[in-house]
Amino acid sequence: MKAILLVAHGSRRKQSNDEVLSLAEKLRNSCSQQYGIVNAAFLELAEVLIPDGIKQCVNDGATSIIVLPYFLNSGRHVVEDIPNIVSSTAAQYPDIEIKIAPHLGASNLMMDLLIASADAGKSEIT
Amino acid sequence: MKAILLVAHGSRRKQSNDEVLSLAEKLRNSCSQQYGIVNAAFLELAEVLIPDGIKQCVNDGATSIIVLPYFLNSGRHVVEDIPNIVSSTAAQYPDIEIKIAPHLGASNLMMDLLIASADAGKSEIT
Repeated sequence: MKAILLVAHGSRRKQSNDEVLSLAEKLRNSCSQQYGIVNAAFLELAEVLIPDGIKQCVNDGATSIIVLPYFLNSGRHVVEDIPNIVSSTAAQYPDIEIKIAPHLGASNLMMDLLIASADAGKSEIT
Repeated sequence: MKAILLVAHGSRRKQSNDEVLSLAEKLRNSCSQQYGIVNAAFLELAEVLIPDGIKQCVNDGATSIIVLPYFLNSGRHVVEDIPNIVSSTAAQYPDIEIKIAPHLGASNLMMDLLIASADAGKSEIT
């Protein structure tokens, strides 16, 4: 069974973390035919952390896991921190295929999303 | 003339800021019929900052400006910092309509983008 582990940075602000959990739930409902498991984890500041997120996917029956960084830019977190954590955790699960997806800013769909958001411009300032 | 001001957080890592500038250029080419001006600015840590970004749009001939937060979550930066800066800057341009678009995580297209990124999962770890 294929799993997605949505990985966000994590925030001291609970509402921000809750948004990520809600998003994971929405994603779970949107792609359940393709990905039987969708869980969320955080790089820091919030639970669960990435190693426990991977463990949870395995316990749920995942045979392959896509770690999906919920990050816009290829900063240090995306380029170094997440790969390092995933790599050292993956060593514990030699029979599970674990891959890291590109960060979101790399997607061709980002242009469509930006334009749709601009068109939805809502809070008038002046 | 309508303008988009793409506002990212800004990073100490030049490559991350350059990604935002490249994205703004790509956006400029993608929506030029609808938005005659597309500029980028940063909340902190990189140039130009938001007030100068707005000024640049006005100097370029903007009559309305959509400030488009390049942020995934509704954290403090999106809820307080950007609105505060935009609001105080907007007071200098009473004839220009300035609005703030929703953050990207609020877009319905985010599901499509997440699934497309997961499908593109590339870096095999194990």
